[in-house]
Amino acid sequence: MRWEIYPLDKDLFPYVENDAVTKEFLQKLFEILFIFIKETNDRDMKVLNFKHPEEMFKNLDLEIPNNGKSLQTLLDDCHTTLKNQVRTGHPRFFNQLSCGLDLVSMAGEWLTATANTNMFTYEIAPVFILMETVVMRKMREIIGPGWENGDSILAPGGSISNLYAFLAARHKMFPYYKEKGLSAIPGQLVMYTSNQCHYSIKSCASVCGLGTDHCVEVPSDERLIIERKAQGHIPFFVNATAGTTVLGAFDPIDEIADVCQKYGCWLHVDVSGLLLSRKYRYPRFQGVERADSLTWNPHKLMGTLLQCSTIHFKEDGLLMSCNNMNAAYLFMQDKLYDVKYDTGDKVIQCGRHNDIFKLWLQWRAKGDEGFEKHMDRLMELSEYMVKKIKEMSDKYYLILEPEMVNVSFWYIPPRLRNTPHTPEKEKLLGDLCPIIKGRMMQAGTLMVGYQPDDRRPNFFRNIISSAAVTEKDVDFLLQEIDRLGRDL
Amino acid sequence: MRWEIYPLDKDLFPYVENDAVTKEFLQKLFEILFIFIKETNDRDMKVLNFKHPEEMFKNLDLEIPNNGKSLQTLLDDCHTTLKNQVRTGHPRFFNQLSCGLDLVSMAGEWLTATANTNMFTYEIAPVFILMETVVMRKMREIIGPGWENGDSILAPGGSISNLYAFLAARHKMFPYYKEKGLSAIPGQLVMYTSNQCHYSIKSCASVCGLGTDHCVEVPSDERLIIERKAQGHIPFFVNATAGTTVLGAFDPIDEIADVCQKYGCWLHVDVSGLLLSRKYRYPRFQGVERADSLTWNPHKLMGTLLQCSTIHFKEDGLLMSCNNMNAAYLFMQDKLYDVKYDTGDKVIQCGRHNDIFKLWLQWRAKGDEGFEKHMDRLMELSEYMVKKIKEMSDKYYLILEPEMVNVSFWYIPPRLRNTPHTPEKEKLLGDLCPIIKGRMMQAGTLMVGYQPDDRRPNFFRNIISSAAVTEKDVDFLLQEIDRLGRDL
Repeated sequence: MRWEIYPLDKDLFPYVENDAVTKEFLQKLFEILFIFIKETNDRDMKVLNFKHPEEMFKNLDLEIPNNGKSLQTLLDDCHTTLKNQVRTGHPRFFNQLSCGLDLVSMAGEWLTATANTNMFTYEIAPVFILMETVVMRKMREIIGPGWENGDSILAPGGSISNLYAFLAARHKMFPYYKEKGLSAIPGQLVMYTSNQCHYSIKSCASVCGLGTDHCVEVPSDERLIIERKAQGHIPFFVNATAGTTVLGAFDPIDEIADVCQKYGCWLHVDVSGLLLSRKYRYPRFQGVERADSLTWNPHKLMGTLLQCSTIHFKEDGLLMSCNNMNAAYLFMQDKLYDVKYDTGDKVIQCGRHNDIFKLWLQWRAKGDEGFEKHMDRLMELSEYMVKKIKEMSDKYYLILEPEMVNVSFWYIPPRLRNTPHTPEKEKLLGDLCPIIKGRMMQAGTLMVGYQPDDRRPNFFRNIISSAAVTEKDVDFLLQEIDRLGRDL
Repeated sequence: MRWEIYPLDKDLFPYVENDAVTKEFLQKLFEILFIFIKETNDRDMKVLNFKHPEEMFKNLDLEIPNNGKSLQTLLDDCHTTLKNQVRTGHPRFFNQLSCGLDLVSMAGEWLTATANTNMFTYEIAPVFILMETVVMRKMREIIGPGWENGDSILAPGGSISNLYAFLAARHKMFPYYKEKGLSAIPGQLVMYTSNQCHYSIKSCASVCGLGTDHCVEVPSDERLIIERKAQGHIPFFVNATAGTTVLGAFDPIDEIADVCQKYGCWLHVDVSGLLLSRKYRYPRFQGVERADSLTWNPHKLMGTLLQCSTIHFKEDGLLMSCNNMNAAYLFMQDKLYDVKYDTGDKVIQCGRHNDIFKLWLQWRAKGDEGFEKHMDRLMELSEYMVKKIKEMSDKYYLILEPEMVNVSFWYIPPRLRNTPHTPEKEKLLGDLCPIIKGRMMQAGTLMVGYQPDDRRPNFFRNIISSAAVTEKDVDFLLQEIDRLGRDL
């Protein structure tokens, strides 16, 4: 084998004409990746092999050399990297809404990498641009009537999607803003959002010049709008969250839409998922079609690989008039083809990663029906978990009835069982979360997140959003936390 | 073979325990991808098979079905997609600065997809977070003395990187801005940039509330700073471009740094590449270490797969204090490990795609030396092209001596040869660009970009940034444009 003479990247395409080394290198990589995929799906394998940063640094050779390493070393690097990576697609990974390893979506991402193009023009991404058109239209149709002829774009993550909504709202209300800036607006702009919203909403207020003091963290209270108007301020943007990050709670979209209508505010809805399930869509999304914009992240409940976020507008043309900078040197109008398919001028990014192919391919694989079943199954498993927690009410305390796949709870060790549930006890239970999480990571058997919120100390928030999870994994989770925490 | 009974995605992991169908599906995908890679590197294959959007729609089945398609159909989809995609890694693709198909970087992206994680915490991306630390520090060391202990982050594209610089500059000057907003600043903020800068700089002015009227498109003219100050405005941010998008021109960084120092402005430098070449670094980057922030996109001259953009700051801590929203529910401080490695709170994104692995692996493969040789080779080829154009001065008009890999020229058809070069002639030559480009795309033999700038009608801008290009490809390019355009 040629490998014995240490080929370098100079032995790959395009440096050589013969394909042998390239094929062998990629085939070997394929084997390494496939082992990782198998192990990810193997319940006998750990979710992670935890090491502290300093220990990890010592164990790995991360240095950038002066002279290039051999292809064999690169393959070893790949192997070592995966060995030390957390298996986010493992059936016992409950840590994040974006997890699982959908293999069709992954196949899509391999192809995306191989095609290596930029989504800014039809010229260099013809098929992908058309796929984006098709899938975005479909998603708007799912949002509801009145959205078919709107506009949409894929953005690098939900936070940037939310930023696009904010920018469009401001542009719609003050079209001269783009040139003149905030100083030309006759009053302080104010936005409203539920305090359970994703922090990126508040971030918009900071980035775009409102200041976070003018992001009022109550979405639907008319009085707070009237109060600000009385001060000469201009309420212009309301965010409703359909599935909050921590609790998975739903703001009452229809009620908020009434307030927005009355006061001429833009309504944005930030959606975690579930729109595809007829069973769970109502009443959660009642009134969603009344929104002006909507963020929907397929990398969450749909299991599309990271990153895959979409932002939709009911009105067409806004994205373009809001964001275009007339960069004639990039987005020429005198092209061979119909330039309405060029998207580069619609976004504040210039380069845009191809996030559509993996979603398109996955949707082809599942069909609407498959995605709906997937959503329903995740909800069914979450309901199963709630049922089990209630059955084990000595060991577990359910914080609230979930509306989504977020199940929030405390673990109660033996010494605290059979004592009244008081704020002091909540504090004690909260103190246990980081300890149990630490043990969990050291053991490597499980990953569940915890955090405080504005009303509670630390608590566990379990997320079931991976197709790999079964009832037995939920059972395991509850047994394992008990095993890890019972002496505390 | 089981394939005859039409397996669906339900026959893959995690829906089944047996790995046979999964492995076969991915192996077949691998074969399809490898054929594309081979064809990309084959000069006998076309760069693209152009179809107009409507024709493409007719030829492809892009619809999302109600019921999922078989795995064989998905593989056919992959094949068809690649057949209709532009081969951006083809040796005759000269259309964009981000092109080529570096196979080690691609291998890295396959692994990245398979590992499917988010870069916001060490908890779920331990190895990748450490790689980011190592590579970012290395890049800062390359920028120059004083940068070692700064801070950096990978962002989704150069435009967002530039936005991060803008936000940090504003935060540094007005720390209360984050909460109070623009209305609390005692004057109109003004930014300065060369008019050849990337349009994302102007976009910052729009997004962040300055208004594009307050983005002055001259970078280093003291008078324009004094003039605005006299109006009570606050000049605060200057962008210098090191390698402009169209012409590849370099702003005089050192001179601009003098002005910034005198007037207390933040200096940002937007870099296309070349920093890694000792031969070409000076005098182009003279004074670069005096900047406060610097955008550097490895997906450009370094050939890293899209997207890979980095933003660097000389001062540590700014990114965090500027962008963090204290999202205690995501970025807890009471974790098992040292949370200084968690990056989520430093960015306005929440999810962050893993763009580091493909760069790290590529740098391991090339070493510093390999990247330097790559840069020098690209410049050598550009110089070769300039020489050829000068030799063919009857057929080609060189617009200016390039400082980078951008070679700007007009093609002169026989009927316009031997006539004086006047503005009227430039207009005629400009009119030919879209026609020749159209023919080029129809023929599929070549891709070169064209655009107007503020001083000229359309002209061709050739980019050599792919390792696949050789002198013979440059020769081919010049022959082919002549073949396509000589009757015009």
